[in-house]
Amino acid sequence: MPESKPVLIVGSVALDNVRTPFGEVEDALGGAAVYSSIAATYFAPVRLVGVVGEDFPEKHVQFLASRRVDLAGMQKVPGKTFRWSGYYEFDLNQAHTLDTKLNVFQHFRPTIPQQYRDSKYVFLANIDPDLQLQVLDQIESPKLAVCDTMNFWIESKRDSLLEVLKRVDIAFLNDAEARQLCGSFSIIKAARQLLEMGPSVVIIKKGEHGALMVSESGYFSAPSYPLEEVRDPTGAGDSFAGGFIGYVASTDDISEANLRKAVIFGSTLASFDVEDFSLRRLSSLTTKDIAARYCEFKQIAQFEALAANG
Amino acid sequence: MPESKPVLIVGSVALDNVRTPFGEVEDALGGAAVYSSIAATYFAPVRLVGVVGEDFPEKHVQFLASRRVDLAGMQKVPGKTFRWSGYYEFDLNQAHTLDTKLNVFQHFRPTIPQQYRDSKYVFLANIDPDLQLQVLDQIESPKLAVCDTMNFWIESKRDSLLEVLKRVDIAFLNDAEARQLCGSFSIIKAARQLLEMGPSVVIIKKGEHGALMVSESGYFSAPSYPLEEVRDPTGAGDSFAGGFIGYVASTDDISEANLRKAVIFGSTLASFDVEDFSLRRLSSLTTKDIAARYCEFKQIAQFEALAANG
Repeated sequence: MPESKPVLIVGSVALDNVRTPFGEVEDALGGAAVYSSIAATYFAPVRLVGVVGEDFPEKHVQFLASRRVDLAGMQKVPGKTFRWSGYYEFDLNQAHTLDTKLNVFQHFRPTIPQQYRDSKYVFLANIDPDLQLQVLDQIESPKLAVCDTMNFWIESKRDSLLEVLKRVDIAFLNDAEARQLCGSFSIIKAARQLLEMGPSVVIIKKGEHGALMVSESGYFSAPSYPLEEVRDPTGAGDSFAGGFIGYVASTDDISEANLRKAVIFGSTLASFDVEDFSLRRLSSLTTKDIAARYCEFKQIAQFEALAANG
Repeated sequence: MPESKPVLIVGSVALDNVRTPFGEVEDALGGAAVYSSIAATYFAPVRLVGVVGEDFPEKHVQFLASRRVDLAGMQKVPGKTFRWSGYYEFDLNQAHTLDTKLNVFQHFRPTIPQQYRDSKYVFLANIDPDLQLQVLDQIESPKLAVCDTMNFWIESKRDSLLEVLKRVDIAFLNDAEARQLCGSFSIIKAARQLLEMGPSVVIIKKGEHGALMVSESGYFSAPSYPLEEVRDPTGAGDSFAGGFIGYVASTDDISEANLRKAVIFGSTLASFDVEDFSLRRLSSLTTKDIAARYCEFKQIAQFEALAANG
């Protein structure tokens, strides 16, 4: 098998305090770029571009480096690392932010190292869309550029976000964000409007209801994994995106059929992520774990030829 | 092909006033037993047990009789027909009741005609669980008894409802009802609790997010059909249940694999129902319409062997 194409991931590296009805963690390694990178590394090498402060523990650097994450693009600058504190109540779909300290992230300007500029697979995790544009300006000719975003940018930087959407191939949004951006209650209608804004594929993340991929060629509805207990939803969307783009990069195949499989691999990684706090479960998977859960997704979704394939 | 087994359906026959952002109807034929019967008749003959008042238009009787609906069990009694008035706002997942007039339904006692008592397929649509129990007492040996319910009975007649759940094979609930009955935020956990209450299969209806079937042997996640416009959601859950049990009766096969197909046929009928007001779309389908949409569901759900089966 040829070496997989690397994935370039740009986004936040954070220290999180998270509390859920099932426990809590303090100063845990987190951030969109970290969750998505760890998920992606099960399929492809990762080039991480982000920023940390002087307080960022060396053990986290070593952990990332040990997982096929190239850190040449991770800046360490004076000041403190980005911090997020939040909690979830029994309705684990809704994160409640207690505090966000941007710290060194406030003045972050992503600089893509020369040796990363030929990256074919690019994931712009949830950051200021102006920074996402700066990243795109530095990449020579991506084969697949994927972006994520959040409600804050939809409100405060709508024009820049629309510019990003014009320039990416795939946009990830959760259902509430899609509704907000498009002013539509129907996520189907919102997804179709999003396609008109630029991307050729839109992937709507629906939490416990799975995901919907919409393109000109049709709809793909992916189930969620039926977990009885979600211990910590932090990073689920990022693990999803990381697993997705990692799988696509590893196969170097952007056909509709392969993107569908990638959505299921993304769902697989997200389902593991939420089983425990921080990166505990996400970082302890085997290839066999992933393959077995992918097969479970097949069992959960199929309604024809059950006997033949099951 | 042998004649399909008939389906016995017990529930409300109503005259509805419905308003949505897309229009309105007055005095439209409705009620859970009517929606589910019409959906079921695409697969199997139906025996409808219900009650109407003297004001019930003869044209509705003739319409039902023309559609393989046996009306020997439909009582016509002095008084007025059950009426529901409600509206939906842009969030079409939520029905707002303006007025419910039980009228003749208030004193309804379901009497199962002698010739119906051998029914093998029974759908207890959403009515007072005490009446659902009376129906079960009158059926000799159903092969598949299916019930639906609603938040009102979960609150006001919990004990009777628990008794119904002990005696049916399959329970239909929507996600909010499952959460309410089980006191659990996780619909996965709620579904597992419901299985312990009696039924061997639980089907959770999630509206625009599809449906989830849970049994001892596993989970089946069915997508919803990606409609850009839902004109009137009234009767969606009943069309779903009617299509489901009609298909099972027509195949006389209650295996897990066949129940999965039945869920998709139910989803198919529900997706047509919501395309127009009252029974307009639901009652104007062809076998070809249904087969084509079932195939679309396959396309929407599958992520393996896409090229081979597609």
